[in-house]
Amino acid sequence: MSVERHLHHFPLDPASRQVRLALAEKRLKFNETIERYWERPETLAALNPSGLPPVLVEKRPGETLVICESRAILDYLEERYADPPLLSNASLVERNEARRLVQWFDRKFDAEVNVYLLHEKMEKRLLNLGAPDLAALRAGRAALRAHLAYMDSLLTDRTWLAGASISLADIGAGAVLSVLDYIGEVPWDEAGPTRLWYAKLKSRPCFRGLLSDRYLGLPPAAHYDDLDF
Amino acid sequence: MSVERHLHHFPLDPASRQVRLALAEKRLKFNETIERYWERPETLAALNPSGLPPVLVEKRPGETLVICESRAILDYLEERYADPPLLSNASLVERNEARRLVQWFDRKFDAEVNVYLLHEKMEKRLLNLGAPDLAALRAGRAALRAHLAYMDSLLTDRTWLAGASISLADIGAGAVLSVLDYIGEVPWDEAGPTRLWYAKLKSRPCFRGLLSDRYLGLPPAAHYDDLDF
Repeated sequence: MSVERHLHHFPLDPASRQVRLALAEKRLKFNETIERYWERPETLAALNPSGLPPVLVEKRPGETLVICESRAILDYLEERYADPPLLSNASLVERNEARRLVQWFDRKFDAEVNVYLLHEKMEKRLLNLGAPDLAALRAGRAALRAHLAYMDSLLTDRTWLAGASISLADIGAGAVLSVLDYIGEVPWDEAGPTRLWYAKLKSRPCFRGLLSDRYLGLPPAAHYDDLDF
Repeated sequence: MSVERHLHHFPLDPASRQVRLALAEKRLKFNETIERYWERPETLAALNPSGLPPVLVEKRPGETLVICESRAILDYLEERYADPPLLSNASLVERNEARRLVQWFDRKFDAEVNVYLLHEKMEKRLLNLGAPDLAALRAGRAALRAHLAYMDSLLTDRTWLAGASISLADIGAGAVLSVLDYIGEVPWDEAGPTRLWYAKLKSRPCFRGLLSDRYLGLPPAAHYDDLDF
């Protein structure tokens, strides 16, 4: 059956990157519209009442689906395109763990790291809000170090974040770390097993699209697309 | 098979209330520990690295599951105890819509309403942080009105928030509105169909536990447990 698939997203938005990674991991092709969501585009608001990316639109003969918000899209993709799985083939314990970690990165990591580092170094640039606040940068960097140490502790005896298989937890963590890496904020020199985990993730085909992202006026860190960083 | 089920929660935490509502809707009995999470209890941190409620522990012969974070618990309950369903029997369109709304309440509503109203009127009381900030209260109240208007627009031609059946969207919205109602912050006089929807939700057996909550030093609004408010 022919499916016309369209993703509305912003390249440096972690939630959008989660969906791009999941689509690529499941080898689902899509057309795209880049949404500068902070300008409140009406076309995006017409699709998603929250006005935020990502939004996935799938059209089939007799069916048009508009799926809004990252978790809803990830769950939809997992239900409809179960193979390769990002959750469904894991054990009950691993599924619970993957979902715990998705919430960890969507909420705790977001509140402790993104609101500082992504706001100060990315959003302020995009919105012309002036120079980064140094105290905020310090707070975000300290929190990021703590989160990396926590990931190191998980990855000491696990291949992937939630256990033996790649899962939504790796997609969630990879999405946000790749944005932080774009702006040169991940202290890889201090990281343990997380660095190897990220190198492994980075060399998967699903990551290629992300690594070729370039956003005008906000160039990536030099090592951003280097697989051997 | 005998299951020993234990929920670690805080009565006025919206995320904890989501899980209590889902457990009650599915008629799953549980023992409980009230967690004053802001005091960073070690027992809670040992169960959940984020240090936050809710945490569900289920023990069976040969299996102990510790399930952390609200969405992970809700997904687990829906998978393991599918009947009565809170998602799984709905159409694809309704499932997508329910998941969109869960994220709406967990993120957008939280960022625009809870961080103001719950912080100023509840957390400051619990933590002895002084009097509410009036500008913050005004911002939270204005945002709450906008969210209620949005719910009114959804409920004009729907029985439940995501469609024809009660779903995780109603659980998510009911959990947070019931906390705001406890502190007397829901302007019911101005609400349209959302008021009828809340009355219907409030009279379901699953709501009974929530309506009998009383937290020392923070008494509920007079109409809080009134089914005919």
